[in-house]
Amino acid sequence: MYTMDVTPRFGDVDGLRHVNNTVIPGWFEQARNPIYRIFNPEFEFDNWNLILARIEVDFIGQIFYNNDIHIKTWISNIGRSSFEVYQEAVQGERICAKGKAVHVHYDFKLQKSIEIPPRFKKDLEQHLYEIIENV
Amino acid sequence: MYTMDVTPRFGDVDGLRHVNNTVIPGWFEQARNPIYRIFNPEFEFDNWNLILARIEVDFIGQIFYNNDIHIKTWISNIGRSSFEVYQEAVQGERICAKGKAVHVHYDFKLQKSIEIPPRFKKDLEQHLYEIIENV
Amino acid sequence: MYTMDVTPRFGDVDGLRHVNNTVIPGWFEQARNPIYRIFNPEFEFDNWNLILARIEVDFIGQIFYNNDIHIKTWISNIGRSSFEVYQEAVQGERICAKGKAVHVHYDFKLQKSIEIPPRFKKDLEQHLYEIIENV
Amino acid sequence: MYTMDVTPRFGDVDGLRHVNNTVIPGWFEQARNPIYRIFNPEFEFDNWNLILARIEVDFIGQIFYNNDIHIKTWISNIGRSSFEVYQEAVQGERICAKGKAVHVHYDFKLQKSIEIPPRFKKDLEQHLYEIIENV
Repeated sequence: MYTMDVTPRFGDVDGLRHVNNTVIPGWFEQARNPIYRIFNPEFEFDNWNLILARIEVDFIGQIFYNNDIHIKTWISNIGRSSFEVYQEAVQGERICAKGKAVHVHYDFKLQKSIEIPPRFKKDLEQHLYEIIENV
Repeated sequence: MYTMDVTPRFGDVDGLRHVNNTVIPGWFEQARNPIYRIFNPEFEFDNWNLILARIEVDFIGQIFYNNDIHIKTWISNIGRSSFEVYQEAVQGERICAKGKAVHVHYDFKLQKSIEIPPRFKKDLEQHLYEIIENV
Repeated sequence: MYTMDVTPRFGDVDGLRHVNNTVIPGWFEQARNPIYRIFNPEFEFDNWNLILARIEVDFIGQIFYNNDIHIKTWISNIGRSSFEVYQEAVQGERICAKGKAVHVHYDFKLQKSIEIPPRFKKDLEQHLYEIIENV
Repeated sequence: MYTMDVTPRFGDVDGLRHVNNTVIPGWFEQARNPIYRIFNPEFEFDNWNLILARIEVDFIGQIFYNNDIHIKTWISNIGRSSFEVYQEAVQGERICAKGKAVHVHYDFKLQKSIEIPPRFKKDLEQHLYEIIENV
């Protein structure tokens, strides 16, 4: 599991005085940096090899400006050329949002998906989320 | 169907030189303004009665900086106290992203969902997406 | 003068129920697209030749969710290798924000500023803001 | 001086593969949270008493995705009803951006500026930036 703490910005809150839904995908993306390092340790854009195919977020409880949020990040599924990330945003003791993001290992020059090499799969497996019933 | 055109900003593009995934939920939210007007014509925050329960976005094709994007918005499902919005982002002739957003008719004072009044349901039904096979 | 209309998003509003200050630089950037077209008609990133040196924004009046904002964009100064853009955000009859953005004509390979060619200067001059006392 | 570290998100980078200018005002706002706590320790929006009058940012060097940024925050000026915050964004050893933000102590019900109470001034003075020549 990867973890990251994030401090809400004044502007992250909307007219309902809770953090706006569109902010969460940005936090989740930020918390996926360590996964992107597996595929591209130096973050070289010319050799980037991942593309995002899908995101989903469930908003379970309101998130407020007053306290930091703890983001937990796991790998929830590994396929031939794609993998799924599962993430939770926790404020205090409450899970406020949970999301999934499907990534495809991708060759931008050929514009097609390519198999994930075994060495990357091995790294991803270190962070597998296995307690399925909680998802 | 509601429609909106949006012009990408220079900063909407990421290091892969296509529009970053986190931008799309913002465009989709912007395009839902007419739906929010059904529930709250004057956009009064003290009487706001909708809360977002879930979003999902499928990224089908890359979106580029060079041309405007056409956002199409339908109602894809109406329940007792919730409804689902289905949206597409089209650039040129290509559907580049499609998303769903589940909204709950909500009483913020009581902190619970409430049934959608028939007059709102009637308005929502004007924008129902019925050609299921394309979704 | 270039003009653009922008519709606020639900999430653009902050806890004070007016549009958050950090939203305005994004609107102003979006409204500068036609200026970027002068320097790079096809928006080719490999040949990009502008870098932003400075922005400033004065927040004169609150901007609200309920109505569109009209963005006006002028060129306020042209130097040897740089030029300044002056912009206003108008909601209803009120000028709510005004800003400046200093751009440098820049060679990213050599990492240095370069003189603005006369043909670009001529295009910029078509949009000069001359009523100095209002700035 | 207040300090905060921020990790760039994949989407913070634009087509030039450096952090987009519109991202910096958000970082600076986030880093001003401790100053907002002086005026409103519990971050209660109904009693909010600050409004932003002006921001300016100088972009001195490019900021990249690969490394965290260190944000330094000082008070650079204290007036009767307003104060100015001075901030720097440092990546590695380089100051990449510096900015100012003018805040007004404000009564939202009366819609007018009000004098900053001595106890708040005293707290602000603890963070004064005095080495003027570096600004």
